[in-house]
Amino acid sequence: MPQSNPNFPLIAAIDLGSNSFHMVLARTSDRELRILDRLGEKVQLAAGLDENRHLTEESIVRGLDCLSRFAQLVNGLPEGAVRIVGTNALREARNRDDFIRRAQLILKHPVEVISGREEARLIYLGVSHTFSGRAAKRLVVDIGGGSTEFIIGQEFDSQVRESLQMGCVSYTQRYFRDGKITPQRFEQAYTAARLELMGIEKNLCRLGWEEAIGSSGTIRSIAAATQEAGLGQGQATVEGLGWLKQKVLKLGSVDKIDVAGIKPERQAVLPAGLAILEAIFDALNIKDMSISEGALREGVLYDLIGRHHHEDVRERTLNSLMTRYHVDLDQAARVEAKALEAFDQVRDAWNLDDERDRELLSWAARIHEVGLEIAHYHYHKHGAYLIENADLPGFSRQDQRTLALLVRSHRRNIPKQKLLALSNGITLIRLCVILRFAIVFHHIRDPLQAPEIRLHAGQDTLDIAFPQGWLATHPLTQADFEQEAEWLKRIDFTLSVR
Amino acid sequence: MPQSNPNFPLIAAIDLGSNSFHMVLARTSDRELRILDRLGEKVQLAAGLDENRHLTEESIVRGLDCLSRFAQLVNGLPEGAVRIVGTNALREARNRDDFIRRAQLILKHPVEVISGREEARLIYLGVSHTFSGRAAKRLVVDIGGGSTEFIIGQEFDSQVRESLQMGCVSYTQRYFRDGKITPQRFEQAYTAARLELMGIEKNLCRLGWEEAIGSSGTIRSIAAATQEAGLGQGQATVEGLGWLKQKVLKLGSVDKIDVAGIKPERQAVLPAGLAILEAIFDALNIKDMSISEGALREGVLYDLIGRHHHEDVRERTLNSLMTRYHVDLDQAARVEAKALEAFDQVRDAWNLDDERDRELLSWAARIHEVGLEIAHYHYHKHGAYLIENADLPGFSRQDQRTLALLVRSHRRNIPKQKLLALSNGITLIRLCVILRFAIVFHHIRDPLQAPEIRLHAGQDTLDIAFPQGWLATHPLTQADFEQEAEWLKRIDFTLSVR
Repeated sequence: MPQSNPNFPLIAAIDLGSNSFHMVLARTSDRELRILDRLGEKVQLAAGLDENRHLTEESIVRGLDCLSRFAQLVNGLPEGAVRIVGTNALREARNRDDFIRRAQLILKHPVEVISGREEARLIYLGVSHTFSGRAAKRLVVDIGGGSTEFIIGQEFDSQVRESLQMGCVSYTQRYFRDGKITPQRFEQAYTAARLELMGIEKNLCRLGWEEAIGSSGTIRSIAAATQEAGLGQGQATVEGLGWLKQKVLKLGSVDKIDVAGIKPERQAVLPAGLAILEAIFDALNIKDMSISEGALREGVLYDLIGRHHHEDVRERTLNSLMTRYHVDLDQAARVEAKALEAFDQVRDAWNLDDERDRELLSWAARIHEVGLEIAHYHYHKHGAYLIENADLPGFSRQDQRTLALLVRSHRRNIPKQKLLALSNGITLIRLCVILRFAIVFHHIRDPLQAPEIRLHAGQDTLDIAFPQGWLATHPLTQADFEQEAEWLKRIDFTLSVR
Repeated sequence: MPQSNPNFPLIAAIDLGSNSFHMVLARTSDRELRILDRLGEKVQLAAGLDENRHLTEESIVRGLDCLSRFAQLVNGLPEGAVRIVGTNALREARNRDDFIRRAQLILKHPVEVISGREEARLIYLGVSHTFSGRAAKRLVVDIGGGSTEFIIGQEFDSQVRESLQMGCVSYTQRYFRDGKITPQRFEQAYTAARLELMGIEKNLCRLGWEEAIGSSGTIRSIAAATQEAGLGQGQATVEGLGWLKQKVLKLGSVDKIDVAGIKPERQAVLPAGLAILEAIFDALNIKDMSISEGALREGVLYDLIGRHHHEDVRERTLNSLMTRYHVDLDQAARVEAKALEAFDQVRDAWNLDDERDRELLSWAARIHEVGLEIAHYHYHKHGAYLIENADLPGFSRQDQRTLALLVRSHRRNIPKQKLLALSNGITLIRLCVILRFAIVFHHIRDPLQAPEIRLHAGQDTLDIAFPQGWLATHPLTQADFEQEAEWLKRIDFTLSVR
């Protein structure tokens, strides 16, 4: 089981969105948050994606400049007190690793890219903790720069989480690139959004909701503009949308959008945002939508303090993964216990982190057999595929990739080069050796066989000492470790058993 | 639903084993089989695998020579009356496609490579139909040239199917390559087999059985030799195994094995087979093992007549796949019905096979959303991964690959080159166009929307005619088909809608 993290008095979340980058800094006490500072800059990362889905150097520099301004506030915070998440533009970008590496150098904290559904989960968490309305069944909609999230939930639990590939920046690029606004272009953007919605609208409507809530800058600014015009009380409404659409079409160009309530930096993406919101209203038959101030960033903060208080959603995710894929829970527990016991013996010699590395090993031990549900042949590869590609709430894409690689390496040959390609490659190889030791030890899936063993770790060596005479009476285990030593020899690692 | 196949009076099965190739020809009447002819040749395909897992040209030619002798008996049989299955050596061989292509030219019937678990299922089917013992709970063991299968079942149903990578040919290559037999080598082979067994022995023993049955040449010849020596009544027993092992060790070399009951062509693989069988007896605590004459080949025949009689195990497999991965069954049924309706309209123009192609389309329609259980993002790719890698009883590896490719192609871009790389590539592209049409048609997942449509197919074109005026009142469907036309344009296919 992962160790508890300390309680941090100050925590921060940074959201590397497709339209803007935002930071929020908060003071925590018990389970409460008090926001101390908010920063936001329009970076428009999504606009920097070229036709090959590469972020241009120019857009990367734009993003990094913004982060160096954020850095001052987070550089001094301890590890674990800052969570930085990237969304659709970074999901899409083929050269995301380049951006992440450079961003981490500036921020001194890990940068994670999260999946669309994970983004939806966090948005709901932010809305549910900050929205002051009644505790009804809610539909939450968040129109971002590159993707739009839809969540149905009640109180603090989300029931359905969807993410569609449409956003105010990407649609502006596609339909209003030169700034001209015509009824045809508006219609095209609207229709494209309707087509995206087709796959989910029936399901959402079947589940139903009592209250619709919008949580993004696009929806907030549309609501603000219509309120300024004397329509509604700060909600987005069908009438307000219709009025604003006519106004924008009449203006005919984004430069001319000078509407009270719309900030200058939102002018350019307003037509696309309007078309998307109109499509959502029509597809889901929404008449009005309340506004939530909190969203992704607040959700990240609440997730962070939940983690510190042992309400780790990742535990729930792993348990549901093990259940869904019918993992042999007894065997998983045996391997996990033995792996952690071994970890504690070699931790100092191998300079392993008692929290992060121990946690990673524990996760990998629990789900290493998840691929057996697909097929026995090459099941370590199937497990890695599942872990890398599944929606795993609470885990970032990088977490998933690391975990997948450990599971991939739990039997047969070890893909040393792939492990070393990650920044903590040496550590991963060592965790892999520990995991494999525990698996070989429990190869026979017998709860009784459990002699005390002593481990001694060197640079690229591991010595295993069984009780005197035990190996002689267990020749199969001996042979098994000899075979394992052969596998490890291929990666220049020496395993000895006596 | 797939159409029923005609009843064939004559059917044949060919088993391309790792040690021998076998053919069996049978006459069918109602649900009964009468074996007319059996042919077998020791080809030792597994011995032709080099260190890069390529079959040497020499071993390929050896195999093809054997098949040209078999060909005479099956060339004249109609399509569907002959089933040819390859097992472990072909599963392993990286150049299996080369062998398969040349084998099909000779045999004029499709050659399938089956997974280890599928092999286990078919072995059990063969044993359960031919073994005359009482209907107890059985353990069936089949030691092949490259793999060994274990099945626990009762009557005609197998409960557990396992396949381990150990066989009498591969172990002979590894431990007795030069023909010398020493106690050390025997011990090494025995230990390697015990290690393979470790992963499954507890589980098999927990399930238990009343009767152990052996079904392969290795086990049959060991039983025969011990019977000749006056030990047992044609069973393999612990005592017989011990006696034969001592005898073989004393002889010290495979050339000297001249034991009554062991055919000359089995001499060389006897020590490896003995070591494997002894390991199985010890790991599973078996005292004696009855012998079944029927096995894989008979199972293939019974599977073939089952298919002809609508007891298609593949239907059961697809249903269980849909249940396990929580497919939206209503949507699957809507898409399937619409796809088959479209198929019937374009079948003649596109020269589609009313059985095989229709069946394939129906399968793909039913499971095209199976990857959604993993994640929404790129779910068509996840579905393809599952279908290609899962153990799907009744389907060959090639079936799975074709089906996976169709599912991969059901949305977004179509991997034209991958489709064309298969021998029926043009047909697959057409099936793909039909499947996508049905999916776009039911994009909104609404059971009500169902106008009559007329399809007209040309070489690389499909015209869709909706009822007069219908499209004008359904602009989203129109836009959806326009988007689909864009995707198809990329593979030089013209879709028009009016």
